Amino acid sequence: MRFEVTILGCGSAVPTLHRSASAQYINVLERHLLIDCAEGTQIQLRKYKAKFQKIDHIFISHLHGDHFLGLVGLLSTFHLLGRTRPIHIYGPEKLKDIINLTLHGFHNNLNFTWNLHRLNFSKKELIFEDNLVEVHSFPLKHRIDCCGFIIQEKERERNIRKEKIEEYDLTLADIPKIKKGGDHITTSGEVISNSELTDDPLPPRSYAYCSDTMYSESTIDAVEGVNVLYHEATFTSELAARAKKTYHSTATQAAEVAAKAKVGKLVVGHFSARYKQLTKFDEEIKPVFPDYVLAEDGLKLIV
Amino acid sequence: MRFEVTILGCGSAVPTLHRSASAQYINVLERHLLIDCAEGTQIQLRKYKAKFQKIDHIFISHLHGDHFLGLVGLLSTFHLLGRTRPIHIYGPEKLKDIINLTLHGFHNNLNFTWNLHRLNFSKKELIFEDNLVEVHSFPLKHRIDCCGFIIQEKERERNIRKEKIEEYDLTLADIPKIKKGGDHITTSGEVISNSELTDDPLPPRSYAYCSDTMYSESTIDAVEGVNVLYHEATFTSELAARAKKTYHSTATQAAEVAAKAKVGKLVVGHFSARYKQLTKFDEEIKPVFPDYVLAEDGLKLIV
Repeated sequence: MRFEVTILGCGSAVPTLHRSASAQYINVLERHLLIDCAEGTQIQLRKYKAKFQKIDHIFISHLHGDHFLGLVGLLSTFHLLGRTRPIHIYGPEKLKDIINLTLHGFHNNLNFTWNLHRLNFSKKELIFEDNLVEVHSFPLKHRIDCCGFIIQEKERERNIRKEKIEEYDLTLADIPKIKKGGDHITTSGEVISNSELTDDPLPPRSYAYCSDTMYSESTIDAVEGVNVLYHEATFTSELAARAKKTYHSTATQAAEVAAKAKVGKLVVGHFSARYKQLTKFDEEIKPVFPDYVLAEDGLKLIV
Repeated sequence: MRFEVTILGCGSAVPTLHRSASAQYINVLERHLLIDCAEGTQIQLRKYKAKFQKIDHIFISHLHGDHFLGLVGLLSTFHLLGRTRPIHIYGPEKLKDIINLTLHGFHNNLNFTWNLHRLNFSKKELIFEDNLVEVHSFPLKHRIDCCGFIIQEKERERNIRKEKIEEYDLTLADIPKIKKGGDHITTSGEVISNSELTDDPLPPRSYAYCSDTMYSESTIDAVEGVNVLYHEATFTSELAARAKKTYHSTATQAAEVAAKAKVGKLVVGHFSARYKQLTKFDEEIKPVFPDYVLAEDGLKLIV
């Protein structure tokens, strides 16, 4: 039951040799997702051995270059490697024009179709679901329209105790109902309560991605209680004024969001290229929210 | 008198961990040029320690993604690092729309101006010159409009022999005329021939870039006699039919162009991602044109 996030880039607008710009690869129950797609993402996907040919859904938070400039190259590579499966892109509407215009010179006809699903930048919205997983977008507070994303498992079915299958001679027809919480009625009419037959399932896991954004109470509401929160911390508090001006967050603010939203674990990233060392980030975050990790390119997080 | 080419990417359409797509950084007499700008070029420039803030001229051969998808990211980085000097881009006209549309979301107003100089895809043309250097474009034979480039030094002035300056008491006013080839007339009216006063200058050096193109006689004409020729060799001869179909060249064809054009040295690149090892390229090229080198990312060529 894999739910794993690979940080492909934890830098901000100016990529460096050690930190690529934003992109994350997520394997959630064998659904392969990409969140943001900075320049060089296709190489990062190779470097960190992601199953990138299996990616069917790409989520683009906003149209700042360090979050989408690798998208056309990735689509081109999908095409050249023979992909035929459709791909779903979730992002600002204008992305469609950018992709079309840029691709026009070299791939008028891709081997696969792609659809752009427009994000809603004014309220939280369910943008993808299947039988096991759902993804919501929610507005962040940035200089331009920008969304965060929450990837979560759906509520799982109850686990039937194996010994009860034999004890009550449960049939293939009985099992789905019981897994959904129903009681069992034996051939003699006896009612066996669901609680005798099943155990609680594992609680559904969730991951939230917040980049780029200034500190915002509405983010706290949106990500409340997630297992793992990725929140940007472009600056340390010394540059709080610059963070505010550019609609970014400080390390302290990221930690405050995590604490107030009572998340399980915090990951911070989107570090300004000015920070070679990140010790100041540690110093700020630890007292506010001790269960955290500083992102680095290639870091894998188990949700 | 530096004339140095750094290969930033020698792969073709699908970049790999070992070969980036096309881009080259050229320092010619302290003019800093970039030819093509594939995705990830800004990182390659950092990796190979190019003086990338000094680049004032960018030449884009054509609008296949592996030759220009890093351009918008590079412009963005120039802006974020505080560049104010104008930049000149030489490429297909449509590049202007692509840059404008893509940048629109994040940098409506760059700190510097950029101009797109339209390439002529039907004939050879002088596209840049200053007092020491000139750059010509010339048509290549590819699936879409595509140009090669020749970067060359201008004819240098003659070298005055130092001992003659003292012997004839040459003044600051005399020297420029003599460097241009003029004779000297002494105060007593004696004519001193230029050949007594000067030595021949070094012959001007030249570098030609041909990617992407199929084999073409017109390329041979265009690059005749250059000191160093970079010619694409996407495939080996086993895949000659595929090369022809996709308007690319084989290793043998690249070598034939070099031999017929009587260039000084050949560099081949733009290798298809299918070739992990390049020994077959060696086998094909060596018998046809022995003075060659296979490109690799980071390779520096002295012209």
